[in-house]
Amino acid sequence: MTLSISINTPPPYLVLNKNEQLPVVMTVAGSDSSGGAGIEADIKTITAHRCYAMTCMAALTAQTPAKVYSIHPLPKEFISQVLDANLKDMNCDVIKTGMLTANAVEALAAKLDSMGSKRPKLVIDPVLVATSGSALSSEELIELVKEKITPLADLLTPNIYECFKLIGSEFELQNVSDLYELARRVSVATKSRNILVKGGHIPWGQDGKNFVTDVLYLSQEDKFVVYNGPRILTTATHGTGCTLASAIASNLARGYPIAQAVYGGIEYVQSGVSISCQVASSHIKDNGPINHVYAVEVPLEGMVQDECFTARDVIPSTVNQTVSDIIKGDFFEYLISHPKVKPHWESYIHHDFVRQVAQGTLPIHKFQFFIEQDYAYLLDYARVHCIAGSKAPSLDDVEKELVIVGGVKNEMSQHEKRLKQEFGVSDNSYFDRIERSQALKAYSRYFNDVAKRGNWQELVASLSPCLMGYGEALLHFRSDIVVEEGTVYREWCDTYLSPWYVDGMEQGKSLLNQIARTYPADQLDNLVSIYANVCELETNFWGSALEHRVE
Amino acid sequence: MTLSISINTPPPYLVLNKNEQLPVVMTVAGSDSSGGAGIEADIKTITAHRCYAMTCMAALTAQTPAKVYSIHPLPKEFISQVLDANLKDMNCDVIKTGMLTANAVEALAAKLDSMGSKRPKLVIDPVLVATSGSALSSEELIELVKEKITPLADLLTPNIYECFKLIGSEFELQNVSDLYELARRVSVATKSRNILVKGGHIPWGQDGKNFVTDVLYLSQEDKFVVYNGPRILTTATHGTGCTLASAIASNLARGYPIAQAVYGGIEYVQSGVSISCQVASSHIKDNGPINHVYAVEVPLEGMVQDECFTARDVIPSTVNQTVSDIIKGDFFEYLISHPKVKPHWESYIHHDFVRQVAQGTLPIHKFQFFIEQDYAYLLDYARVHCIAGSKAPSLDDVEKELVIVGGVKNEMSQHEKRLKQEFGVSDNSYFDRIERSQALKAYSRYFNDVAKRGNWQELVASLSPCLMGYGEALLHFRSDIVVEEGTVYREWCDTYLSPWYVDGMEQGKSLLNQIARTYPADQLDNLVSIYANVCELETNFWGSALEHRVE
Repeated sequence: MTLSISINTPPPYLVLNKNEQLPVVMTVAGSDSSGGAGIEADIKTITAHRCYAMTCMAALTAQTPAKVYSIHPLPKEFISQVLDANLKDMNCDVIKTGMLTANAVEALAAKLDSMGSKRPKLVIDPVLVATSGSALSSEELIELVKEKITPLADLLTPNIYECFKLIGSEFELQNVSDLYELARRVSVATKSRNILVKGGHIPWGQDGKNFVTDVLYLSQEDKFVVYNGPRILTTATHGTGCTLASAIASNLARGYPIAQAVYGGIEYVQSGVSISCQVASSHIKDNGPINHVYAVEVPLEGMVQDECFTARDVIPSTVNQTVSDIIKGDFFEYLISHPKVKPHWESYIHHDFVRQVAQGTLPIHKFQFFIEQDYAYLLDYARVHCIAGSKAPSLDDVEKELVIVGGVKNEMSQHEKRLKQEFGVSDNSYFDRIERSQALKAYSRYFNDVAKRGNWQELVASLSPCLMGYGEALLHFRSDIVVEEGTVYREWCDTYLSPWYVDGMEQGKSLLNQIARTYPADQLDNLVSIYANVCELETNFWGSALEHRVE
Repeated sequence: MTLSISINTPPPYLVLNKNEQLPVVMTVAGSDSSGGAGIEADIKTITAHRCYAMTCMAALTAQTPAKVYSIHPLPKEFISQVLDANLKDMNCDVIKTGMLTANAVEALAAKLDSMGSKRPKLVIDPVLVATSGSALSSEELIELVKEKITPLADLLTPNIYECFKLIGSEFELQNVSDLYELARRVSVATKSRNILVKGGHIPWGQDGKNFVTDVLYLSQEDKFVVYNGPRILTTATHGTGCTLASAIASNLARGYPIAQAVYGGIEYVQSGVSISCQVASSHIKDNGPINHVYAVEVPLEGMVQDECFTARDVIPSTVNQTVSDIIKGDFFEYLISHPKVKPHWESYIHHDFVRQVAQGTLPIHKFQFFIEQDYAYLLDYARVHCIAGSKAPSLDDVEKELVIVGGVKNEMSQHEKRLKQEFGVSDNSYFDRIERSQALKAYSRYFNDVAKRGNWQELVASLSPCLMGYGEALLHFRSDIVVEEGTVYREWCDTYLSPWYVDGMEQGKSLLNQIARTYPADQLDNLVSIYANVCELETNFWGSALEHRVE
């Protein structure tokens, strides 16, 4: 039996011009066979940043998150041959170093010296103390690194313990300005121009919250850039140092200035750590690998599946039970009663923001802040409906999304009117200059992700809480409404109680039932999680208005 | 000076659940320091497929596309330690092998034997002859591979020369059925159940065209799957073998059946080869690396840039000259007169398909085929307009796109009416079952790519030729129209000459001028290329209708 299949090679891609000039990053480091750290983490990170990775191995390890089983260092001559070959025959924008041996330091220093001003940028992750705390390197190696290569570095990325090793002494760090002092002293000791002190190992309390603070010191401008991130409770920290340095190196190779390259790198690592991945055996409990590929799209997934694959008979036909086969009654009622959703749904529709508007007690500047944020939100909301339209199964479903965009336009005009009439806005460019709050950014970022990676049903689920919650919240606080007709508060309340809005909610319920009829039952939890997440984001959105202070 | 920046860590992603269970692929192969082949190509490919890569190095090479400068083989004991560590502490779904040494073969065989039925799937790329033709391995190694590991393989992926080595003899290959015979003999000689014979090195002429034919032999079903792809003229073939095997291994790890995994792998390699990348020094002319990252999205690009990055002062402000600053007059006229676009534009609007419709000489089955394909096309076209809406700069621009979707719905209803009235279609499910032609697939795939990776202006440019060309083509052939009023051909011609359509074209021209006013002048060539590409795709689309034969 023979089956013949045509390969559907695409026309040249748009931004993927023929012979695309990829930025090139060479990693000089050790290999971690289990893939979470070292050269392997570097290649993954560089690849995920759409750069081209080259390697120069200083040593190989037989290693997993459990332990380092064996080390195989490489001879200096071979390291030099690799450096010579790569730097002679290939482009190289940035060199990133990780775990080094004396052989590697000497070979690299000699090569860089010989290249003079033509040498690539250099990012040094001074792996002197590993995450697990075991010293992989001797004092002599530290001196060699400081003598030979740190003076050439464009960026050095030590953690706090590595800083102490590099300056040769320790002191107590009590607040962020001690980190500035530490960065300055590392810069002097290493003769490196720019130092990123990774505060990851010391969480800094601030307002009772747990922060991770990284400090970038740009010695030539004598400038500090402080990056504050939430501390993530996780054990997936294997390879964070390698990954951060590689991400920064990739961003530099892509042409970003250093402070921005660092920002992107921290974001990448934070996301990778918080998502993490389950790839270790069940007996490995701690220190699991971070997820390097969370933002990677599978190439041509659609091609591998059915849309362009002409040999349908090799695709197993899947007859799925759908969500509506297993839930009883209305999907909206199911969702808001689900134990995962219910607490978030109730915090959302019982939100004090709405009570304060209804009763007229909300300070007006908080309402203005809310209207501005909601204006910016609605544009995102309209865009996500467009994307939902692009993924809808039929042209009729496409049109349903577009009708909603019309409604959003209506809401935005109302907001515009409110801002002009109540808050004295006269300049139209005011609307473009609205600065997005953290709550809005988090919400939009979630939307973006669902829009990019989710299917139509998931998008519909993510767009539902906004529509349903405003109506339900106003119904809940209906009897509290004491603000007078004609006021901006009353008019805002009335909008979400109007027949036009209630009709939209009915259509929204019916759309939820429609997605339940096609969504696979065994993936129901996805829709539940989305609903819960978005209700939480809505709660935080109203919360951010209540917390808003005039500066 | 101090600048403080908050890290905007996202909420958990939708399909990126916490502790995501990534499929794991271990590559056992040699390292290619320059990154185009070997372990490095494997990690890139596995990462691009959103799988988790582990490594076990058989040997390291100091190597570039120019030559292999040096080889450092690894001791058997170390290889065994790596295999033990990875397979004890980590998950592993698929093992992929590339260049092996005797040490590696023995260590791997011993490990797989000891695992019994719990061993991962095994994809063997028998690297016996490298792309450059130099034998990296001895006859003894081939015997060892055949004795120890090929009988355990789920898939063996030899090229033709490797097939000859494996069966120990050569014979002349005159046609595709000789490849079947070759695959069968390799299966017998290696005791491998499934063989993918890569015909990449022998282009098979067929209808005067150059094809690459790969044959998958599934011995247990005694079934052949033949993959026909266009031959790509390129020198970027360094690492194709490693990449194909890793892509297939990744698809298998993701759970695809073998024939589909192979299909996806070939698509990935074909795209990577045809896009390629410019990473070698200018003195390296041949055998450049393929582009592994063409489908990779840069993680959080928006975050690294301005939208969530609060430290605007580190972002260099870019004041770009726009396209309309450098072109004279109307952008549409500029585009269709551009030397890159003109030949494609003229082939398109002077297309014989339109003449034959106007004169009534087009066989009716070809017209039916066209209407069906155009119906399927229009749904894609509407979707891409939705995506353009999602990227449009203002809500007004969003709405412009949505108006067009309304017009598309109108065109689709007309097609539906035609198919029902003229061609006896009665069943509405008929429209869902339209099978997309290669010309349509190529066009849609291009659209998809621009929609995914392009910005609003690029999308507007890609959507323009369809709108403008139909109107201009009918204007061009206006005097040829002899088909009588009331006929389906006349009514089709009249649609694109109607005031409604001409008005749409005017709006289309004005939208092109609008994008010219914001698009950077130094990237004008992107828009020109898109216009040229889409005109060519339109030409092929009409051409495919003319070439259509009733089966």
